[in-house]
Amino acid sequence: MSKRVITISRQFGSGGHSIGKKLAERLGVPLYDNELVTKIAEKSGFDVSFIKENSEKTSRASGYFMDFGIHGGAGFTTLSLYDQLYIAQHNIIRELAEQESCVIVGRCADYVLEDREDTLHVLIYADDDYRAERIVRLYGERDIPIAKRMKKKDSRRESYYRHYTNREWGDYKNYAVCLNTAQVDEDTCVDLIVDLFNK
Amino acid sequence: MSKRVITISRQFGSGGHSIGKKLAERLGVPLYDNELVTKIAEKSGFDVSFIKENSEKTSRASGYFMDFGIHGGAGFTTLSLYDQLYIAQHNIIRELAEQESCVIVGRCADYVLEDREDTLHVLIYADDDYRAERIVRLYGERDIPIAKRMKKKDSRRESYYRHYTNREWGDYKNYAVCLNTAQVDEDTCVDLIVDLFNK
Repeated sequence: MSKRVITISRQFGSGGHSIGKKLAERLGVPLYDNELVTKIAEKSGFDVSFIKENSEKTSRASGYFMDFGIHGGAGFTTLSLYDQLYIAQHNIIRELAEQESCVIVGRCADYVLEDREDTLHVLIYADDDYRAERIVRLYGERDIPIAKRMKKKDSRRESYYRHYTNREWGDYKNYAVCLNTAQVDEDTCVDLIVDLFNK
Repeated sequence: MSKRVITISRQFGSGGHSIGKKLAERLGVPLYDNELVTKIAEKSGFDVSFIKENSEKTSRASGYFMDFGIHGGAGFTTLSLYDQLYIAQHNIIRELAEQESCVIVGRCADYVLEDREDTLHVLIYADDDYRAERIVRLYGERDIPIAKRMKKKDSRRESYYRHYTNREWGDYKNYAVCLNTAQVDEDTCVDLIVDLFNK
């Protein structure tokens, strides 16, 4: 069965966004990364700046998110804003996958679409040195040292993923292919993923 | 830098051995999987049947293996037979990588050769249903149910790996590429790995 949707889980600085962009261009399908923010704002009524700030953040509440009833469309005003935002995002990702062929980066999309056999799940990661060099080159220096900056961002994404999926971020079992961009260059990654997508 | 050695860590039944064999044929280099047994017997004096039975088994002693002095060639007769076997295997893998281009399957070779930049580390895994069907087809039924059989073997390999490397088996960080053979067919895996190897 050829695939319709690609999800990309990516380590900060590994080039997952860039690979997603190239994939979308090559396949002639939309990319949803920051583009999801506008969609969520339109559908949920959340403010764009709130979504940008919080779309991969969890509340400080401990334990896992209970996702019963998430597809039911019931009101959820007793949930935290973070959880409401997650649910809005979840529903939009489900709708997008239903409607069209596309590439979705981050936002637990691999988990949200785990039951869809027409979806190819990809993990993009890289060695720390490679990521550090790339982050500083592309996004510039910050006051925080680069190692600390990566650790903070990785840890935030891992916590977010764990909270909403009850799975560990980066577990190979959740992916068809996992690629280390420090060793497999971006264009080779794109070629491989396109090949798998079309098979 | 093009690579000289490929290590394959593989989940039981995922086809890692088969991919290793095809890779070695395509590249015209030796494959070391069960072939290591003879090498270890020649060099260490251990009996072939003992090696076959125990080359990926740990002793029941708790805690991690302390690998200080492993490269020193000092006598190690106070160690358990399992640990002596691991050390003999470790030294042979180091020697092989030094001497020739080759493909090595299992036996913590990704850890043993982690410092060699001319080595490409690959993880091969697959969904349980795919593995179960493949194992029964290739190796036949046993008295133990297939799910239990896979769990036992996976768990044994994971414990062995953890004991001797102090790392978790299957951690994406240790590999250039991780491939799910339930979704990426063996020949595509081989093509990709050859491509990376020659780059």
